[in-house]
Order: sequence, then structure tokens, then C-alpha cells
Amino acid sequence: MADKVLSISRRTRATPFSRRVEAAGVRGYTVYNHMLLPTYFESNEFDYWHLCQDVQVWDVSCERQIELQGPDSMRLAQLMTPRDISRCAVGQGLYAPLCDSEGGVVNDPVIIKLADDHWWISIADSDVALWADGLAQGYGLDVRVGEAEVWPLAVQGPKAETLVSRVFGDEVPGIRFFRSKMLEFRGHEFMVMRSGYSKQGGFEIYVDDATLAEPLWDALFEAGLDLNVRAGGPNLMERIESGLLSYGNDMTRDNTPFECGLDAFVDLDADIESISLPALRRLKGEHKKQLVGLVFDQMVVIDAFEIEADGSLVGDIRSHAWSPRHSSYLAMAMMSRAYLARHSTVKINDKIARIVDLPFDFDAISED
Amino acid sequence: MADKVLSISRRTRATPFSRRVEAAGVRGYTVYNHMLLPTYFESNEFDYWHLCQDVQVWDVSCERQIELQGPDSMRLAQLMTPRDISRCAVGQGLYAPLCDSEGGVVNDPVIIKLADDHWWISIADSDVALWADGLAQGYGLDVRVGEAEVWPLAVQGPKAETLVSRVFGDEVPGIRFFRSKMLEFRGHEFMVMRSGYSKQGGFEIYVDDATLAEPLWDALFEAGLDLNVRAGGPNLMERIESGLLSYGNDMTRDNTPFECGLDAFVDLDADIESISLPALRRLKGEHKKQLVGLVFDQMVVIDAFEIEADGSLVGDIRSHAWSPRHSSYLAMAMMSRAYLARHSTVKINDKIARIVDLPFDFDAISED
Repeated sequence: MADKVLSISRRTRATPFSRRVEAAGVRGYTVYNHMLLPTYFESNEFDYWHLCQDVQVWDVSCERQIELQGPDSMRLAQLMTPRDISRCAVGQGLYAPLCDSEGGVVNDPVIIKLADDHWWISIADSDVALWADGLAQGYGLDVRVGEAEVWPLAVQGPKAETLVSRVFGDEVPGIRFFRSKMLEFRGHEFMVMRSGYSKQGGFEIYVDDATLAEPLWDALFEAGLDLNVRAGGPNLMERIESGLLSYGNDMTRDNTPFECGLDAFVDLDADIESISLPALRRLKGEHKKQLVGLVFDQMVVIDAFEIEADGSLVGDIRSHAWSPRHSSYLAMAMMSRAYLARHSTVKINDKIARIVDLPFDFDAISED
Repeated sequence: MADKVLSISRRTRATPFSRRVEAAGVRGYTVYNHMLLPTYFESNEFDYWHLCQDVQVWDVSCERQIELQGPDSMRLAQLMTPRDISRCAVGQGLYAPLCDSEGGVVNDPVIIKLADDHWWISIADSDVALWADGLAQGYGLDVRVGEAEVWPLAVQGPKAETLVSRVFGDEVPGIRFFRSKMLEFRGHEFMVMRSGYSKQGGFEIYVDDATLAEPLWDALFEAGLDLNVRAGGPNLMERIESGLLSYGNDMTRDNTPFECGLDAFVDLDADIESISLPALRRLKGEHKKQLVGLVFDQMVVIDAFEIEADGSLVGDIRSHAWSPRHSSYLAMAMMSRAYLARHSTVKINDKIARIVDLPFDFDAISED
């Protein structure tokens, strides 16, 4: 299939960084939360190697912040997730699947506590603001639900800490994972969190003043000249190697957190009011599918999502990419547990894949 | 700006027609309701002239059908819209803005009644399923909310009635606007409605059996050979000439139906239970902005959305396109009513636009 052009309109929203992203030579976009998300600049593989070696600045404005404010804001946040958020500290982020009354995953955001009565839900690609609004309306909660005017900028890669420290100062290295500090740039305090959608290390800067978006971008590029800083975006190859899940790809509302291996983020025994917990308590251990990794020792063309074996459907492929570092083709697939109980490989397009747990453990895989 | 590539993944969902769309030479897509929507095949203008003269088949699967089933399904649908749906007939569609408790437009779907306890909401680009689910959960309604496995296929253009009649039979011409009949193809009954996102006339076929998607596509192309049938999609030039609004472009949750000229679809005096009616009753006549048309007598480069006059912001451009038929450049803009009260033109990039009501009335415009 030849490349297709993305038709861009006001509906596929631009961001305060878009002019800089264009000037940096973006070549591919996807649309995420009704907003442009850069996918690659040079090529997926060029960008991959650069991300793993140097440092990149990513416009991830599309990680929209759904803002809950008011006395019932924490109650609403807890209703949406089966993860116990009661011990979340101010400035902390918690990865927390949002689940409906049947246990289906509505989104897998990071929930950030700004104050007891002020939360951000840093969302993946679905309109959580509408779900939250419906729940607040129906339950009669005293909470304001909105999409905050915040555009996250990620700095990712092994040199990210050096770069962010040069712009935001000495407190940066002391920030722990999924914790944040309020740090100054041009007289404005930005929330800087150690986080981001790669396993190469880095930070996300929650830019809540659009007039400072380009100055911040420019400051990072000036300070990073000798670090070989480049523009980038979430990289398909790197995120699959790293086993990072993508909502809409690897899981949807048709899946429970258990099917996706997110058991650690479901507090079945917690004494909390959460819409999904009754269903999830029933479903624990009963799920029929499981998200697993597939490893091919060679390049494979994946031209269909369904996986058949012995004439029946045993799973479907969710995401896939070449792994430059491991010279393997990797996929994430939702497979029948009955099949998994009896098989350690599966054949796709006449190529054999080993079935492995997620995240991929390449030391263990190469020992096989 | 050079064209950008759309990075396609499982998350930007393909449809049962995608193989045919690709084979027909699609060049541009947008992402709509997390799904691929073809935007052009040859070029916007080539496709425009063809649509206005012949007949096109459009994959509009992304018009997802949010399905409400159960005793409270009508109550839920009514809660979401300020339009009175109580007199909707079975098989009828009603264009009906969905509005939140502050009167903001959440979506502008066509609501279709399948039975007293079975409704489809044929949505524009926002996750209405999540809003409906939140409301149903919070109000404790006895209703199942889901996204139906239905992929609409539109047939649009002056020869659409001829083509659809050849495939679905003699009852097609008798279908009135926004009404439907259940008609047979290959032994399966399809809902065929006179509707579609153009003003060139046509039908939408609600394909609820994916295995018949390609056979139906092929049958339409075989039957339409002498009609010069081609693949197409909602055409930016045609829809702007026709004054068809696009959710996310021309209106968002920041707008009320009054600002968008949708007063006719708000039943302020109806005795119905609708979340938005209290706010809309207060806001009637009080809105400060109005969606209007702008007509330039020449080609204009629109490189910013904000419209300034005398140093202050007086509006913003929402959609814009060249009108091949009228040799004008057209825009829809949300303008300050205070400005509108005093001006009949506005200057953008040193080019003067006449301000006109929507939809554009080209007879009146050319008389000016």
C-alpha cells in the first residue's frame, strides 16, 4: 500500500508546537484525541536509533488532560478506575486503567493528583471527558469536568535528563519516576514529571501557557545542540520492543485489564467505590484471552489481523514492528488462553513465531 | 506545507470496504471516530465535479451507530438532545444536536428510531458511546449502550437514485428524505435511507453484515458502469458550498446550537426531559457569537484561524475551501455578534470578504 495523505483540518487540531514541528520536517502524523500527533521525521528506523542514543523533543499535546475540579473530583476519578487512588500524593501520577461496568477498558491514562479537589487524567485516545461528564451528570456530583489548556511536551532518550536539567535546573535529576516538581522557565512554573511513552528515560513538561510553547521548544533545541537533539514522537519500533501498550491498538473496550496483563492496576480487595470492581471481581481468572508477545526470527509481512490455527480463530494481532536492535519481528497479539495452554509457537503467513510474555524479555528470549 | 503521511494502525480502524477503497486508488484519508474516512481519490476538485455530475460510492463506515436498546433507550436518547424525539417514526432519522448541561454541543448526529426500545445515534466525530454509558450508569437506566456492527455506505450524486434503484429495486424512488425502507440485496435486508453528507442527493445503506460489504460495493460499481460511478468521500468543497456543518470544525462543545444556527432543532417549549434544556432556555438570544459565511471574490490563503479587526479578536475561521462552481473562496466563521451588528464585510490577509448567512445563497450573493 502506497502512503496516504492525511487531510488536515481544524477538527484534527494543531497544537502550540505545530509550527516548530513542521519546521523540524515532520513527515508522518496520526490523529490522537482529535489532535495531530507526529509519528516520524526522518523514518521510523532512523528516529528509533536516534531516540535510543541521544535525545528527542516530542509534541505530545494530544495527551489531553481531563480536568476534574471540585469537592467530588476524587470520587469521580475513583468511580472510573479499579485502581485505588486514595494514597496518591500531590504531584504524583498513577497509571490507572479506566473501566466500565462490565470491566471493559475505556482508556488507560495516568491519573495525576494536583490537590485533593483537583485531578488531571492524562488520557490515551478516547473521549474520557464525555464519559466523566455523563457520570458526573447522572450521579449528580459536585465537580467540574473539562479539557485543560495543557499541552505536554516530552523529552525522551538517554540524554534527556542532561537536557532538561540545562533548561529547568539542578532539581531535575532528583525527580523520581511518575513524580513531578514545579520548575521555572521564563518566570513561569511548569510541572515537570519523570515519565513518557518510551523506555529510554525522560520527562514530560506540562505546558499550560501556550505563549511559552515555542520559547520552551527553542530553549531545548539551543541547549541540546551538542547532545544531537532532534524532534521526534512516540516510536512504533521502540514502544513495541519496550512492551508499552497502546489503547485502541492493543486493547479496547472489548478487553478487560486482566486480558491485557494489567492485573497489578486492579485493586480487587480495596474498599473503594468503583464502577468496574463488581464485574472485575467476577471476571478475575475467568478471562479467555491474553495479550502476549510474538517473536519472529525474520522479517514477516503482516497483512491480516486474525490468527488462525487448525482452521479456527485463535487470536488477533494488535501491533507489530521490526525490532532493529534485536533483528526480530515483534507483535503483540490477543490469543486464546486455550491455545496458549497447549502451544508455545504459532504460525502466521507460514512463518513461525515464539509466544512470549509481555513485556518482551530479550535476555530470556535469546537464551531459548 | 507539504503533504503529510497518515500513519495507519489498528487504532485508526479499517472498514469492511477498505480493500475496495484502496483498490479504487484512495489518496487521502482523515481519521473520524477512530476510523479511516477517505477524503479524496483523484483530487478535491476532480472529485467535486464528478460528485456534482455523476454518482459516487462513499465508505462512511466512520458514521458509527451508537446503539441504545432496552426499556430506557428512548429516555436516554431524549436526555442527550434538546430536540423533541417523541414523534419520531420507526425508520425515520432526525438531525438532532446532542448537548451537555451547559448547552455545549457534544455531537450533531442523526438519531434513528428502529423500534420504541431500539435507537441508533448516527454520530459525528466524538465518543458519544462514552457519554451515553456514563449517563446510563449514573442515572441507573435500564438500557444497553454499544457501538453497533454497522458500516454505512453512501451513494451520492445526481445519478444516485438511478444507481441505488438498479441494485435495490423499484421502491427506492419512493423513499422520502431521512426516511428509510428495508430492502433486499443477496437475501439480506438492508436499511436504505435517503440521506448523506452532500447536497447532490443520494442514499445511505446501513450495512450490518460485513461479509456482504464487498459484494454490495461490487454490485454498485457493476450496475453503475454507464453512470460513470466512482469511489469518493465527503468533499470539502461541496460540503462548504452546501453549508453542511462539520462537528469539530464548525462547532465544538464550546458552542451552543444557537451560535451554530441550529435553533430549529432545539425544542425550547417541549415538555421533555433533556439535560441541556434548562441551560438552553436561559441562553436563547443571549449568545455572543454566530456562525456565518464569508465570501471572497478571489482565491485567498488562509493561514490562521483568528480574525482580527481594529486590533481585537472578532472571530475565528472554522472551515474554508475554494468553490469551483462559483469561483469564490468560501469560509465558515464564528464571529462576534457585536461585530456583525456593525459590519457586513471583514478583511482577512488584506482581502475583503462579504459576510452572509448560512447556508450560502448564491442567487442572493450574486445579486449583491
